[in-house]
Amino acid sequence: MEKIYLDHASAMPIDPRVLEFTSKYLKGLGNPSSLHSVGLEAKRAIEGAKGKVADLINAESERTIIFTSCATESNNLGIKGTALRNAGKGKKVVTSAIEHMSVLNPMKELQKNGFELTIVPVDSNGMVDLEELESALTKNTTVTSIMYANNEIGTVEPIKEIGELVHEKGLYLHVDGTAAAGHIPIDVQKDGIDLLTLSSNDLYGPQGAGALYVKPGVVLQPVLPGGGQERGLRSGTENLFSIAGMGEAARIAKNEMEKESGRMLKIRDELIEKILEIEESHLTGHPKKRLPHHASFRFSRIEGESILLNMDTTYGIQVATGSACSSKTLEPSHVLLAIGLKHEEAHGSMVLTLGRSNTPEQVPTIVNGVKETVQRLREISPL
Amino acid sequence: MEKIYLDHASAMPIDPRVLEFTSKYLKGLGNPSSLHSVGLEAKRAIEGAKGKVADLINAESERTIIFTSCATESNNLGIKGTALRNAGKGKKVVTSAIEHMSVLNPMKELQKNGFELTIVPVDSNGMVDLEELESALTKNTTVTSIMYANNEIGTVEPIKEIGELVHEKGLYLHVDGTAAAGHIPIDVQKDGIDLLTLSSNDLYGPQGAGALYVKPGVVLQPVLPGGGQERGLRSGTENLFSIAGMGEAARIAKNEMEKESGRMLKIRDELIEKILEIEESHLTGHPKKRLPHHASFRFSRIEGESILLNMDTTYGIQVATGSACSSKTLEPSHVLLAIGLKHEEAHGSMVLTLGRSNTPEQVPTIVNGVKETVQRLREISPL
Repeated sequence: MEKIYLDHASAMPIDPRVLEFTSKYLKGLGNPSSLHSVGLEAKRAIEGAKGKVADLINAESERTIIFTSCATESNNLGIKGTALRNAGKGKKVVTSAIEHMSVLNPMKELQKNGFELTIVPVDSNGMVDLEELESALTKNTTVTSIMYANNEIGTVEPIKEIGELVHEKGLYLHVDGTAAAGHIPIDVQKDGIDLLTLSSNDLYGPQGAGALYVKPGVVLQPVLPGGGQERGLRSGTENLFSIAGMGEAARIAKNEMEKESGRMLKIRDELIEKILEIEESHLTGHPKKRLPHHASFRFSRIEGESILLNMDTTYGIQVATGSACSSKTLEPSHVLLAIGLKHEEAHGSMVLTLGRSNTPEQVPTIVNGVKETVQRLREISPL
Repeated sequence: MEKIYLDHASAMPIDPRVLEFTSKYLKGLGNPSSLHSVGLEAKRAIEGAKGKVADLINAESERTIIFTSCATESNNLGIKGTALRNAGKGKKVVTSAIEHMSVLNPMKELQKNGFELTIVPVDSNGMVDLEELESALTKNTTVTSIMYANNEIGTVEPIKEIGELVHEKGLYLHVDGTAAAGHIPIDVQKDGIDLLTLSSNDLYGPQGAGALYVKPGVVLQPVLPGGGQERGLRSGTENLFSIAGMGEAARIAKNEMEKESGRMLKIRDELIEKILEIEESHLTGHPKKRLPHHASFRFSRIEGESILLNMDTTYGIQVATGSACSSKTLEPSHVLLAIGLKHEEAHGSMVLTLGRSNTPEQVPTIVNGVKETVQRLREISPL
């Protein structure tokens, strides 16, 4: 049985080209903060990686990139580091109801520490309600955090318009670009983004690296103070293997994005068309404004966990349900509840995220697996 | 020219056996929070790694181990996470003057946020002044952080006695075990340690992983909230390659520590004896109670940076000066100032940390390199 991997949203394989590029850094080049020759070579590797990440998002220079250990840390730094450092200008923060937990939870931590927090709702397609956003923004709003695209339902938010609203009244726009980067173009300058979170592993890079773009002039404080690496904003000896890998992954993503996204879009549309032939099946997220590699569904009367397990054991097809982070709690996804689904509707979700290994030839196998799985689970369902 | 690497304090090469063990995880096993088969395999790999780390420090169970991205993060979590969560019991924290910046800076952050901070002095050998420590401890002292051994001067602190003092009056003892683990036995239960920081890269494991031991019953809050991984104490998709590698590195360290430490101790003592033949050379740190792989010196009238560069370019020998973290600032090391050295004395320091690749046969080459370097630099020194 050919294994088909359709869970590229949170744990992608490393691109073999990335691995080849960065494997030399597993040999131990030394500490980039050291002055001896191996230390200097390590430092140059980090600067090179920053240049490549900056290129992917059209940042002003490689100096705008701060490497962290993952997207969760970048979100924490971008949100808490900025809100706390700018607390003198106001103690209000704003976000949306469908953000990743690594945005929502830092926001709630700020709220516990005396910040006012407004969580803006989204419509049934997962689009942020711009009127509600506008009315939430005040002159005291120092940080607004809205994701570029949602990892569970694929919806792409109107970041440019959001940036304009934020900058009219507020101070800084933080954007979680984890799900979008490498799939659709992000231009921090045109999009009006002040802080942007990126994840190595979501770009076919190694785990262990994330990045935070910080627009020149934006001031923030570290979440992990220490030896003062990364301009004092992220201490700890740099994870050279993952950082150099993230840089190379960003370079490849930039080069191949247009072609790959076009290729995946066709597979995605065929999957959506054929899977929606199943009775009582629904697309979740926006039908048009969605990530090119992302197809997400819900099926009535069955459980997402059962879909996932049956697809895996019977068909060798790895899919996701809800967010990986909430998978283990078995609670319905907060994203699906936020787009207006009832608890029982939110439970029957399946998320397919395409990657470089997927081909159009896999579509019939996938569609057949989904159809038979849904049918079988409905037969044994007590609902 | 044979290259000799003597800077094992902060950027060790990965042990080839560790790399062989953990390389399979570079292939992308999936997200450990997912329910499908690859996700479950990833989860088992993490649990296995926790067991091995727990073994190294004689922890109660693998459930006491929280994986982070590095020692800096573990120190931040152990100190801030515990102090903030237990603030209701008191807002006083205590540490020593020779701690790593990733301990001192989180402590200073707490101080800015209304905590009382006492920094206890050390003697000229770098031993924490136990009388001063005792008088700093009050019933309001929730977190005391003292390192097991110092990375710059090699001094091993009397952690067991410190633990007794802390537990008599205070609440929790956090210990930065980064420099000591794998070189001398650490037994969290016998030593009375409540929280212990470990670093993968200081155990010949990959960069990108650290661990925090949390004694059962100790409560703390996350520094990086998000999707709730690691019992809610450290969010972010787990860095499987580094975590599995850290586990294997801990297993090897435990097996080989006694033999390797004995081997290095002999090389160290020979290096110390011969290098101290140089005029106006001094050992820094404790002459007896020091790490078995650690030899640190200061030479009057010359600069540590120049020693490092000359040793590297002329002899191919990589050494360190002061802490790697402070190398780039060219400020004298806070550790050397804390043991009572004057600014000009603290500048001429050289740190040799032995590793698995070093042999007794290298001693004459190293000693010759140091002697010639010191002589040459003194000849051209304006002092």
